[in-house]
Amino acid sequence: MLAMKTPEPMPVEVSRDAFRNAMSVLAAAVNVVTTDGPAGRAGFTATAVCSVSDEPPSLLVCLNRNASVYDTFCANGQLCVNTLTADQQALSNLFGGKSSMQERFATAEWSTECTGAPLLDDALINFDCRITNRVAAGSHDILICEVVAVRQQAGGEGLVYFQRGYCNATSRA
Amino acid sequence: MLAMKTPEPMPVEVSRDAFRNAMSVLAAAVNVVTTDGPAGRAGFTATAVCSVSDEPPSLLVCLNRNASVYDTFCANGQLCVNTLTADQQALSNLFGGKSSMQERFATAEWSTECTGAPLLDDALINFDCRITNRVAAGSHDILICEVVAVRQQAGGEGLVYFQRGYCNATSRA
Repeated sequence: MLAMKTPEPMPVEVSRDAFRNAMSVLAAAVNVVTTDGPAGRAGFTATAVCSVSDEPPSLLVCLNRNASVYDTFCANGQLCVNTLTADQQALSNLFGGKSSMQERFATAEWSTECTGAPLLDDALINFDCRITNRVAAGSHDILICEVVAVRQQAGGEGLVYFQRGYCNATSRA
Repeated sequence: MLAMKTPEPMPVEVSRDAFRNAMSVLAAAVNVVTTDGPAGRAGFTATAVCSVSDEPPSLLVCLNRNASVYDTFCANGQLCVNTLTADQQALSNLFGGKSSMQERFATAEWSTECTGAPLLDDALINFDCRITNRVAAGSHDILICEVVAVRQQAGGEGLVYFQRGYCNATSRA
């Protein structure tokens, strides 16, 4: 005899392509995320960055565990989120491409603040962070980071990724 | 006798105001996040939403544990991320303000898809999600959500929050 069960909603399969198409319309700031330390220097372009809490000041970065830079970031235990200005599209492409780390870092000026992670000198803003927790979610880890120093430019437009292209973030008058 | 220790970098205090000022230049898409179910209907405006993984398709939403809607979202166990178009600024202000839930939902048309969470009919995109994990980080919980259905409009510009104002996301030609 079969037990009666309340019918559950059908799980709907959202394909990888459908999900990627969908995510392409969620506009996001473009950042170059960097690290340097005992495990070496690395950096990649990321839009999956968001604010978490201001007590303590923290943000998160999502990183694929299969990414070539994953081990370097985890071993160093720190990172800097360098949010790009509207005219740093070339840097976004470079850190999102196949160039060596040496080539990537050679194209811009960097300094350090608190953790030793490279701060991009002309970024809209730099968030110097310690990675305080890692949470696995599917193929990615969510890196939860405490912001230990901030360096901010006077102003400027932000670089935004939307519908697989770039646009500018600038406050309406 | 004092043991010698390797000096640690000074922890730098980033004040709440400094952090909020810094975060205001991280441009982000504006979303109305909704739920409906046994615990009732609720919705709020959020920019702290980001893509996590496409296997399984998942995103995250950060929510303050002290928010009045927190218990409702957790009890229902599902939510919809409704990403706003450039002309839905009023809806962003409404769901980010002090109006009752009844007033908020009365101003737009809604439907449901898979989970029962309200999908905003004119949104740029709707991500219908099950909350699969909650991770505490400071004052907030990171709600990790599996996307079980997506409904997408043909096109349009996105609403972006930047430097405490709105701007439009539109792909460069």
